[in-house]
Amino acid sequence: MDHLVPTVEQDRQRMTDRLFLDDLHVGQRFASASHVVDADQIKRFGAEFDPQPFHLDEDAAANSLFAGLVASGWHTAALTMRLLLMGGAPIAGGIVGAGGEIAWPRPTRPGDALQVVSEVMEIRPSRTKPDKGIVLLRSETRNQRDEVVQVLTAKLVVPRKPQASASPSEPTLEDVVAGTNTHVGHVVRHDSAYDWEAAPWAW
Amino acid sequence: MDHLVPTVEQDRQRMTDRLFLDDLHVGQRFASASHVVDADQIKRFGAEFDPQPFHLDEDAAANSLFAGLVASGWHTAALTMRLLLMGGAPIAGGIVGAGGEIAWPRPTRPGDALQVVSEVMEIRPSRTKPDKGIVLLRSETRNQRDEVVQVLTAKLVVPRKPQASASPSEPTLEDVVAGTNTHVGHVVRHDSAYDWEAAPWAW
Repeated sequence: MDHLVPTVEQDRQRMTDRLFLDDLHVGQRFASASHVVDADQIKRFGAEFDPQPFHLDEDAAANSLFAGLVASGWHTAALTMRLLLMGGAPIAGGIVGAGGEIAWPRPTRPGDALQVVSEVMEIRPSRTKPDKGIVLLRSETRNQRDEVVQVLTAKLVVPRKPQASASPSEPTLEDVVAGTNTHVGHVVRHDSAYDWEAAPWAW
Repeated sequence: MDHLVPTVEQDRQRMTDRLFLDDLHVGQRFASASHVVDADQIKRFGAEFDPQPFHLDEDAAANSLFAGLVASGWHTAALTMRLLLMGGAPIAGGIVGAGGEIAWPRPTRPGDALQVVSEVMEIRPSRTKPDKGIVLLRSETRNQRDEVVQVLTAKLVVPRKPQASASPSEPTLEDVVAGTNTHVGHVVRHDSAYDWEAAPWAW
């Protein structure tokens, strides 16, 4: 864990180099620090959140469909979040996600050194909240063999620079939300669950 | 944590009541046990994986856009996984996810009692691997006020009953993968990252 704690210098840099919505452009890329996952971390996370044999015990895991100990996908996701905060996405105001898509093409295994490489895919200022917007950020979490263990495409809430928020541009937040709801299609029944405008922390 | 550890009885029940692909039907619903999240759990997860002020300290959080301490979305996701394993999705072979969509309509706060209610949305036997299939499971994580704090639509790998795997049916796994890739569209460049057939643990 110790090597995951940011130094004072890293914290200072994060404050001064942070990027507002207006500083971002489509195609912009970021690379995080790296983090080595060991068996103890995998088992500890597994015991607390995902207690299945292939996350808990080498012998039991050897006989599972994974043929060895693997990290919970949610552990990979949590470590990805940590790496995004360690230079992986130097966003002003921190990293606030409204949701996204996640895939685990292959599992994380003990000894893997994970790094997150991200790219800005879309930037959408909000029509109703002129001080912020949504950024679609695609983040690949890769191991030391450059194999992708996770792909996360996240919708991040990013503040605008105060002086740049006078004339919000199209497309609108409603387009983003509509696009999301269109995709999930019939699985969205409880529209109130998607009332983004009512979520004060996001919009 | 103690109340999250399954009892022997729960473990036994999980082994005997588990459902194969052939036991599931669209519209089938499951409800998990519940889990109360406290401030210590929120801060501990935050310190390890998501060290932003609104996950770490009440005073700092009070001045943030959340106006109070909130759990990391990834903490809510990890707790949802734990609850899915506690009766929330009694799937044979455990809960193995290939990915999915996640949204956090509102944050989890200290004292929230979370429960996961899930519904089977789609069932797709694999064409190439007759012993398993993909199930699309939509899981709402709700607090004690019945407010939805997370919606997860996950693609789960579910084994078929041994005697039922002779004649796999359409639509195929390729349809599922194609559907996924169509949605993420231009954000998918590294096709190898989506080489599901090459992922031995999933297909």
